[in-house]
Amino acid sequence: MPPQYAPSLRSRLAPLLLFLQTGFIIIFAFYTEIERNGNADDFSKRYPEFQDVNVIVILGFGFLGTFLVRHGFSGSGFNLLVAAMATQWALILNGVESLYYRGRLRIDLKSLIVAEMCTASALISIGAVLGKTNPVHLILIGLLEVSGFILNKWLLQFLLNTRPLISIMMLHIFGSLFGLMLTGTLYRKGSEQRFEKEKFDTKMGLFSMLGTVVLWMFWPSFNSVLVDDRTPGRKLEAVCSTYLALAVSAVTAAAMSVLSNPKGKLHLIHLQSCILAGGVAVGVSMSAVRHPWEAMIIGFAAAIISSIGFQYLKIHMLLAFQCHDTCAILSSHALPGLLGWIAHLVLQIKDSDDHTVAIRFAVFHICSLLITIALSVTLGILTGLLIRLKFWRPPQYKNCFDDQAFWEFSHLAVRK
Amino acid sequence: MPPQYAPSLRSRLAPLLLFLQTGFIIIFAFYTEIERNGNADDFSKRYPEFQDVNVIVILGFGFLGTFLVRHGFSGSGFNLLVAAMATQWALILNGVESLYYRGRLRIDLKSLIVAEMCTASALISIGAVLGKTNPVHLILIGLLEVSGFILNKWLLQFLLNTRPLISIMMLHIFGSLFGLMLTGTLYRKGSEQRFEKEKFDTKMGLFSMLGTVVLWMFWPSFNSVLVDDRTPGRKLEAVCSTYLALAVSAVTAAAMSVLSNPKGKLHLIHLQSCILAGGVAVGVSMSAVRHPWEAMIIGFAAAIISSIGFQYLKIHMLLAFQCHDTCAILSSHALPGLLGWIAHLVLQIKDSDDHTVAIRFAVFHICSLLITIALSVTLGILTGLLIRLKFWRPPQYKNCFDDQAFWEFSHLAVRK
Amino acid sequence: MPPQYAPSLRSRLAPLLLFLQTGFIIIFAFYTEIERNGNADDFSKRYPEFQDVNVIVILGFGFLGTFLVRHGFSGSGFNLLVAAMATQWALILNGVESLYYRGRLRIDLKSLIVAEMCTASALISIGAVLGKTNPVHLILIGLLEVSGFILNKWLLQFLLNTRPLISIMMLHIFGSLFGLMLTGTLYRKGSEQRFEKEKFDTKMGLFSMLGTVVLWMFWPSFNSVLVDDRTPGRKLEAVCSTYLALAVSAVTAAAMSVLSNPKGKLHLIHLQSCILAGGVAVGVSMSAVRHPWEAMIIGFAAAIISSIGFQYLKIHMLLAFQCHDTCAILSSHALPGLLGWIAHLVLQIKDSDDHTVAIRFAVFHICSLLITIALSVTLGILTGLLIRLKFWRPPQYKNCFDDQAFWEFSHLAVRK
Repeated sequence: MPPQYAPSLRSRLAPLLLFLQTGFIIIFAFYTEIERNGNADDFSKRYPEFQDVNVIVILGFGFLGTFLVRHGFSGSGFNLLVAAMATQWALILNGVESLYYRGRLRIDLKSLIVAEMCTASALISIGAVLGKTNPVHLILIGLLEVSGFILNKWLLQFLLNTRPLISIMMLHIFGSLFGLMLTGTLYRKGSEQRFEKEKFDTKMGLFSMLGTVVLWMFWPSFNSVLVDDRTPGRKLEAVCSTYLALAVSAVTAAAMSVLSNPKGKLHLIHLQSCILAGGVAVGVSMSAVRHPWEAMIIGFAAAIISSIGFQYLKIHMLLAFQCHDTCAILSSHALPGLLGWIAHLVLQIKDSDDHTVAIRFAVFHICSLLITIALSVTLGILTGLLIRLKFWRPPQYKNCFDDQAFWEFSHLAVRK
Repeated sequence: MPPQYAPSLRSRLAPLLLFLQTGFIIIFAFYTEIERNGNADDFSKRYPEFQDVNVIVILGFGFLGTFLVRHGFSGSGFNLLVAAMATQWALILNGVESLYYRGRLRIDLKSLIVAEMCTASALISIGAVLGKTNPVHLILIGLLEVSGFILNKWLLQFLLNTRPLISIMMLHIFGSLFGLMLTGTLYRKGSEQRFEKEKFDTKMGLFSMLGTVVLWMFWPSFNSVLVDDRTPGRKLEAVCSTYLALAVSAVTAAAMSVLSNPKGKLHLIHLQSCILAGGVAVGVSMSAVRHPWEAMIIGFAAAIISSIGFQYLKIHMLLAFQCHDTCAILSSHALPGLLGWIAHLVLQIKDSDDHTVAIRFAVFHICSLLITIALSVTLGILTGLLIRLKFWRPPQYKNCFDDQAFWEFSHLAVRK
Repeated sequence: MPPQYAPSLRSRLAPLLLFLQTGFIIIFAFYTEIERNGNADDFSKRYPEFQDVNVIVILGFGFLGTFLVRHGFSGSGFNLLVAAMATQWALILNGVESLYYRGRLRIDLKSLIVAEMCTASALISIGAVLGKTNPVHLILIGLLEVSGFILNKWLLQFLLNTRPLISIMMLHIFGSLFGLMLTGTLYRKGSEQRFEKEKFDTKMGLFSMLGTVVLWMFWPSFNSVLVDDRTPGRKLEAVCSTYLALAVSAVTAAAMSVLSNPKGKLHLIHLQSCILAGGVAVGVSMSAVRHPWEAMIIGFAAAIISSIGFQYLKIHMLLAFQCHDTCAILSSHALPGLLGWIAHLVLQIKDSDDHTVAIRFAVFHICSLLITIALSVTLGILTGLLIRLKFWRPPQYKNCFDDQAFWEFSHLAVRK
């Protein structure tokens, strides 16, 4: 029997959304303006890239989360809602510095793109708690994660002088660790067993296949969009490397899925989690990848690690650390992200002629990882503690992974 | 028991399609040529925008109409059919003037884009009668609506000297009023009750979610594609304003859906109808929007008005005016369109320093609305009267909203 | 009762994938580098076109193959797998010549685009055997077809001096004849009857509608991407011609579907097979099409021929030649491709002033078709003989068209 009334929505979600949205409008009214001095050529070059990132964030992540049999509306709908809120918030936070120096926060396509990438890190976090939380939780997680990620980006840039491209690509590591800590903190008794409705079926599998394929196709844009195009060929390098890494990791993930499955068959969700691993890993190590084969080896390794994580770590995380990870973000973002970080380190040291420079780089690189881990873990736990409050009216255990807890189905078709 | 034979198709649809298509080919053969003097840079800039508009018209509108449980093939298939016919017709009509002056009708990417936007206005009209008409009706409605819209565009430009951008953006108001008059004229006894098959289910909800999300993502292209890029920054302004208005209206529509639903839950079709409201309203007022916060407030208001329209007006329109509006175009296009028109007026007057200019603008602006309303209402009713003829073999009442009336399912899978 | 264990996957697919992928990485490591001297403007122009082709290959072809009721995972998943392998292989083979002259194989966006178009020809072939083969077969077919197609391209260029654009557009004819020979060679007893699971249902029909619509929208990019943009207007010509041909063939296909159906209804799979015919035919004759009406007449004729092929030839091919053609590639690619070839010949001769030149062209044009046919038929039969070996463990007859033969459904939802 589905619930007839969703207590969390009317008394919590609606006021929260209206309050935050009004606040955002007021901030935009006083502090922002649109950058009017850009030239038209720049706009034409950047606009298709912006749309590719937009498609990744809205369509890709949205439909990736529809694989659960009764959770399709929530998967795609809440993703859109969180993305719409978090992008506005990220636009504001990213502009604080320019606000300080220039008195106005200028919006252009680049700031929209950066804001959407910050949003992507929040959407990764949300993958870990999908289905076990209500939309109020998701909005709060989205906004707090984005704040934390931008703080992390700012710390890396000001303490370690990290370039924006590298600090933003930390989004996979930051987002997934934040999400894992969060879901660990939100653990409830009984979650060790599989939730009754945590299943997929044929049709929903195809909707999430659509999301996966969209991510796979446009991932080269995601990795290359912030690469500086003043050095000729850098952007092309990013696109080709990402494309090849994705191709290799799709092939490898299929092989690994067959090898690790007890019946020797392919597993759709396994494939969907692992074919992007190469793209994630190459994204994190982008600045150091110079040759196609480097990207391909990274893609190969990422798919293997991600597959092993999906098959063996997911269940251990649940039993040993009470960490239930709905969309397997540990294996699809955290492990490939860490692999990419290591690949960056190795490649950069290999390419350095000078020992001092190499050691200096290694120290900075390790520090940037440590800061990211420390911040994401701390903020993930704090956010989890905040979200646990009964005040937000969490969904009951039996309503987890069920659209009917939040969505009206009054005109629902009876079975034909 | 579904019908075994669709009388309207073989004796009406096939001859009509072949006749019209042959006619179009003859017209194209004698009067058109492809513009060969464009430069390659212009092509590269415009082509991605053309594709975005194409995606909106074919994929976006097509899958938006798939939410009804047994009407998915018709929703997406007939949309493609009408779009393919109406775009050819709009290309011809839009070129009549250049035909008169230059003897040839020149086709380039811009004329394709304008033709697709005229088609969009026909697809909006069709939203009101979807499921209650046969494809012959839809083709006729599409062609007549496009003719009417282009006449309206031409009247506005020649009587009032309205700029093309503004007269084309009237498409939301024209299309929706035309559709509402049409569905009112086509009223049949018994339509006050809900049609037996007018329901949605989980899977179809996700297909229409796909359409909605596609419209939401590419709407900035739809609003900005005709903005002149010779003034630097105008196009960026259009993109950013539309993006922010859409984000605000997605958030606001979710809050309003929860507040207006009796059970306090989210309603998927409500959300899908209202999250685009901000984009529609900003599109109509585009030429006067200068600051992000103006767009955001317009998006906020549009979502509220659209939600109220969806929840309360749709049913009143049916009971009081016998106007059954399948896709709720009243709340998703007419109301936000009118709001955008008002916002344009207010913003333009606010920004004028000179009273004479402001009053002059207001007079012109009001006249353009009145002409649009008069023309769309008149033509909508006339089209409705034409469509009511028994000659076109309307579907029987019990076959409304049923794909089986028009589509062969001979190899239909039995339930697994 | 679905099989509990897929013998072909673990002992054949996984080693094959890992072996080939390792091999590809080694080849890339020794012989390739990324082209670094391209300019940024070129990249910006070409990148959106590359993405359109990518969307056609991955999303379009992938979802086009999902129409069979129990074969959606295989249709979309194996398409991605084959595309990922075949594109890498095509990159290598296409670069062999530059490897010979320059010692390195340079990768840029253009080489990626050409590689994806070669992959498209393999994906067309696979359409004929979909559902009756295991993924090991599909990988082998993909790699062999791509090798054959590139050999054909090379022969045409070196023997007949054919321009790359024309030799690549032979992909429709080459791919479909290869596929038809293959499926003829793979014929098994009992295939004259319809396979038990070879059916479509409503939801799967919409997924394949998505694929069709994606192909329809982006086909202008597919036809125009290799057109030289140094002659102003050629690219625009290609885009407009393709768009108009597609519009005409969508309309004509709908009329033909109604006329040829025994109950006078529309048939979704018929429509999906035939609305692209115009795009295919115009693609093959692209270099000679100069006026919109030529493209429209080609689109009209292509849709008629393709419809007749779908309705009457498909079943005769099966009964007379024991050639079971799952996706009807005979009517959707072979016939329109041949029509386009004829149209090219006719238009080119019509436009020549000089008899000698016209005859010379005709001889070359006929030779290029004969070479393509000879090569595709021979290689198709040879590939078929290789694939027939029991060593590859073909799926049992009763498991044809069933995802459960290859995909794990352990968490499959019970019927709600």
